[in-house]
Amino acid sequence: MGEANTGSVRCDRNMELMVPMEVHKVVPPPHKSTVHKLKSRLKETFFSDDPLRQFKGQPATRKWILGVQYLFPIFEWGPHYSFNLLKSDVVSGLTIASLAIPQGISYAKLANLPPIVGLYSSFVPPLVYAVLGSSRDLAVGPVSIASLIMGSMLRQEVSPALNPMLFLSLAFTSTFFAGLFQASLGILRLGFIIDFLSKATLTGFMAGAAVIVSLQQLKSLLGITHFTKHMGLVPVLSSVFDETNEWSWQTILMGVSFLLVLLFARHLSIRKPKLFWVSAGAPLVSVILSTVLVFVFKAQHHGISVIGKLQGGLNPPSWNMLNFSASHLGLAMRTGLITGIISLTEGIAVGRTFAALKNYKVDGNKEMMAIGLMNIVGSTTSCYVTTGAFSRSAVNNNAGAKTAVSNIVMSVTIMVTLLFLMPLFQYTPNVVLGAIIVTAVIGLIDIPTAYHIWKIDKFDFLVMLCAFFGVVFGSVQEGLAIAVGISLFKILMQVTRPKTALLGNLPGSDIYRNLQHYQEATPVPGFLILSIEAPINFTNTTYLNERIMRWIEEVESENDAKNHQSIQYVVLDLSAVNAIDTSGVTLFKELKRSLDVKGAELVLVNPIGEVMEKLQRADVSHDIMRPECLYLTVGEAVAALQSAMKAPASNHV
Amino acid sequence: MGEANTGSVRCDRNMELMVPMEVHKVVPPPHKSTVHKLKSRLKETFFSDDPLRQFKGQPATRKWILGVQYLFPIFEWGPHYSFNLLKSDVVSGLTIASLAIPQGISYAKLANLPPIVGLYSSFVPPLVYAVLGSSRDLAVGPVSIASLIMGSMLRQEVSPALNPMLFLSLAFTSTFFAGLFQASLGILRLGFIIDFLSKATLTGFMAGAAVIVSLQQLKSLLGITHFTKHMGLVPVLSSVFDETNEWSWQTILMGVSFLLVLLFARHLSIRKPKLFWVSAGAPLVSVILSTVLVFVFKAQHHGISVIGKLQGGLNPPSWNMLNFSASHLGLAMRTGLITGIISLTEGIAVGRTFAALKNYKVDGNKEMMAIGLMNIVGSTTSCYVTTGAFSRSAVNNNAGAKTAVSNIVMSVTIMVTLLFLMPLFQYTPNVVLGAIIVTAVIGLIDIPTAYHIWKIDKFDFLVMLCAFFGVVFGSVQEGLAIAVGISLFKILMQVTRPKTALLGNLPGSDIYRNLQHYQEATPVPGFLILSIEAPINFTNTTYLNERIMRWIEEVESENDAKNHQSIQYVVLDLSAVNAIDTSGVTLFKELKRSLDVKGAELVLVNPIGEVMEKLQRADVSHDIMRPECLYLTVGEAVAALQSAMKAPASNHV
Repeated sequence: MGEANTGSVRCDRNMELMVPMEVHKVVPPPHKSTVHKLKSRLKETFFSDDPLRQFKGQPATRKWILGVQYLFPIFEWGPHYSFNLLKSDVVSGLTIASLAIPQGISYAKLANLPPIVGLYSSFVPPLVYAVLGSSRDLAVGPVSIASLIMGSMLRQEVSPALNPMLFLSLAFTSTFFAGLFQASLGILRLGFIIDFLSKATLTGFMAGAAVIVSLQQLKSLLGITHFTKHMGLVPVLSSVFDETNEWSWQTILMGVSFLLVLLFARHLSIRKPKLFWVSAGAPLVSVILSTVLVFVFKAQHHGISVIGKLQGGLNPPSWNMLNFSASHLGLAMRTGLITGIISLTEGIAVGRTFAALKNYKVDGNKEMMAIGLMNIVGSTTSCYVTTGAFSRSAVNNNAGAKTAVSNIVMSVTIMVTLLFLMPLFQYTPNVVLGAIIVTAVIGLIDIPTAYHIWKIDKFDFLVMLCAFFGVVFGSVQEGLAIAVGISLFKILMQVTRPKTALLGNLPGSDIYRNLQHYQEATPVPGFLILSIEAPINFTNTTYLNERIMRWIEEVESENDAKNHQSIQYVVLDLSAVNAIDTSGVTLFKELKRSLDVKGAELVLVNPIGEVMEKLQRADVSHDIMRPECLYLTVGEAVAALQSAMKAPASNHV
Repeated sequence: MGEANTGSVRCDRNMELMVPMEVHKVVPPPHKSTVHKLKSRLKETFFSDDPLRQFKGQPATRKWILGVQYLFPIFEWGPHYSFNLLKSDVVSGLTIASLAIPQGISYAKLANLPPIVGLYSSFVPPLVYAVLGSSRDLAVGPVSIASLIMGSMLRQEVSPALNPMLFLSLAFTSTFFAGLFQASLGILRLGFIIDFLSKATLTGFMAGAAVIVSLQQLKSLLGITHFTKHMGLVPVLSSVFDETNEWSWQTILMGVSFLLVLLFARHLSIRKPKLFWVSAGAPLVSVILSTVLVFVFKAQHHGISVIGKLQGGLNPPSWNMLNFSASHLGLAMRTGLITGIISLTEGIAVGRTFAALKNYKVDGNKEMMAIGLMNIVGSTTSCYVTTGAFSRSAVNNNAGAKTAVSNIVMSVTIMVTLLFLMPLFQYTPNVVLGAIIVTAVIGLIDIPTAYHIWKIDKFDFLVMLCAFFGVVFGSVQEGLAIAVGISLFKILMQVTRPKTALLGNLPGSDIYRNLQHYQEATPVPGFLILSIEAPINFTNTTYLNERIMRWIEEVESENDAKNHQSIQYVVLDLSAVNAIDTSGVTLFKELKRSLDVKGAELVLVNPIGEVMEKLQRADVSHDIMRPECLYLTVGEAVAALQSAMKAPASNHV
């Protein structure tokens, strides 16, 4: 830094003329090596939650135990498990099982898979999650959106009707890749990637998916047999109205009745949370009731389509069905990637929500490994992609679940169903499954959140609309890609066009604040004080240069009009400049040159450590980082420079 | 906001106990409508230079004149043109013409085009630019990098040897698209897109391109006839050493001699800028000398390849050659896009550099329109893509150019050459053109800048290396894409993992600064003061939540170890939070909830206007934005809350 009070005389601190004023020196931060900086940067990026903190300073045995508990959370809560907890978990486990059976069958159909795969998927994955997962409330199983995406993506290349075995094997392969991808994100600690799906994106995306899913149910609700293979709003509606001759009044009557019952049950549970069991039990009751109706009235001969024979027995192994042949590898990987990230997003969000409610912690990266491993194991045991479902987890929580044991209870119930109860579903009408799906996905259309987003941030609302219409009129992938793209573009634009604010003094204080925000703030004659509120880098150096020069011109022309003192000091408050790069440092050189021509001085205030270091390294001739033009606060800069202005101009031009 | 001093008693301002302390109220910014905000946001994004400022408050006739001058800058400087200026411009125009003739021929060969196209391209575009351009120093013509890119991209699909007419027509079509793209960027005011090519990216890219270009010259420098069609380092070198039998000693001797002369001339001019004419004249002298040598010794029969017969005459029209057939449209558009953006970047950078040196202004968007229109016109008059060349503009400036008239003088000189002197180039050896190109591009390898980047910012250096190796081992497009990708990723990561700093008090002041930077700063007992230095949005809400909780835990365990007071207030300094979105506002609710559990209070300091507005709109229950937990400076917050802490805890738990 060199010694103070050399160099330019204009900036000279003229202390003698003043009442004693302390000026704090801006010092460079303590030196840290590049390796050290890189290390701490990597730590913040990948290990921001500092997962090894608990291991510090522990004896070796304790470290081992902690390590096992870290990898298998069941060893953490298992030893303290009590009969009281078990009672709660059995109740909640049975409750979610009653929901999981009809939903499993329905969602498998949504994914164009045999209904029984939905039950398989509610048996193995919950057991895996119970051992590995750290959430106590997550109810694991297939979910609507991932089912929809998997079904629609695979159907683009392989027909589930013409080639069901290939379709099934690709579903398992996609599930394998989804799990692999999810576990890798966790292991590589790249979990933050799912944060790139903002709440606005997800709200729009979910609502769009709900619309798409509901439209698909028109097939079973109206009893249409020749239905379009496309997912979009336009082809589905035109298909529905082209095939009016296939509409079956018996099906429609049954569908509408059960839909109304289910919607009413849902409504009731929302209004009175204590009655959660009404909506939790309604789907199973509907399935039983409708099956009995069909059986009694032999309705399958009157235009009502039924599930048909289901083979009993537990999950057969499926590792021999994983298909890594080059012809469909790309499709399986793509499908796995998209369903993996979407189901991960849902699972993590659900886990975090309930963890926050009950005040415990869920480690995002660890959860990813758990969900990923669960799907890898699932893909070898005839399960398709699963995750923590929002609606079922809410029921689980309402029913009083205390630990992951409720998942085990659910799993055992499904096992019993698979072993002994499968023949009962033979006459279950498809229309009631459609009604169950519609009731389940209708909750994904979240109008209050949409309104909340509209109220707070119009741009987020736009992102939401893009995701919604992208999904409804384009495809699931397009909707997501557009929404993520414009969300990230917004962030880039915030950096490319950063805010600059003209500061003024709050009378009677040494506080300087935005003149446009604080009306009582007044500009200081002879000074132009600007705060820059973004990193200074290659994307905005040109803009900032132009913008600052424009501020100067605007203020100068105003000063001229009012015969005010012309600008002598341009003070840049850099407190909010959190980073700078090689292009950024040239900004100050260029500003300095432009200001020299105008006869004004560039003064910097409070550059943070990194910015200061880089400016110093770039400023070999000490033009900019002269101590007499560098202050710690705007107040001190103005006070010191004002006293210099007032001093007789004896020793300069 | 409600009235103060209600709600929580813990935050109560207890004024009576203190020496009179003024606490400034945080007020919401004056209301502005969404439309108003959108308007000012759009203005900052697209019209940040406020181009219509000069029109404000002018009479109608004056507005017309200003408008014409705005579109055609020649009407701005033309009327004041004087004989003195003309003298300077003639000298510099002749100087750059002597450079433009050999370079034009060489660069056209670099683009696999007939040599004469290079001269055509130095005739029409400078005339167009003289009328439309606002830079006084730009010397317009073909440039090495754009020539290289155009040649290599087109050659991927069309062979210039087998199908020269198609190749030529695609070159003109690409030029047309390049011009269209450049002009559109200017008209749509999207000029900031070229800022996304950072200095680091360009430095690496240019150096890589120089290596690639130089390697290509081994063909003419060694006299090889069967040369690879690839551009990469590996295929070229293996081709060179595979064909050692084709090396011609006469060619190598001539090449090395002229290369040494040219490099010496360049070296001399760099050391003594007054001798700029040495390096400016050397290429033409070399061409003349080598042509005479070949002619005298009939060297074309001794293995030295020559340009061959060139047709005289001015540019023939070429609009009939523009090829918009579907089979090559994609290629032409891609090539146009890449060459357009690269040549635009060079042209704008050159214009800005010299404008800054001579203290006048160059309007980026207007320049883009000028360069774009110049290329559109060029594409219809047998010119390929042109821009302002750095080396030639530097010579132009050194030779004393005052206005764009020097471009006109150069253009006229080229016209004379085209009309009368073309037969003279028949015996010009290709080897000397290779030497000229190598000498020209060697200046693109900018070691001092690379060192400067290394010194200031290691990450930028990495970006530079990626661009360099991407170009050398991959392709021009790959190098650019990788470098731009990781530059933008860095910006995203700065937002995704924002800095948070623990603040402490500078003794004897009310200033709070980073504890790690200012060693004399001391923490305030009972307080945890954090500054957040980034927008709070969906990409970082989860991280910030975890990071803040980690800060609290770290400080608390330290406090416990030292038996210090536990944390009662978590003060977040939001001065540097320049934006917030719907996900961001949930951060404060979650923090508030976590802190309530810990028995600590959340205090916010100085949210800027937008952040404040959104927080208020989200905080319907006034949990967070209570006036007694909202301060304008950290100093005031600590002072007020400390006095509340000291007050007898009569009215709370």
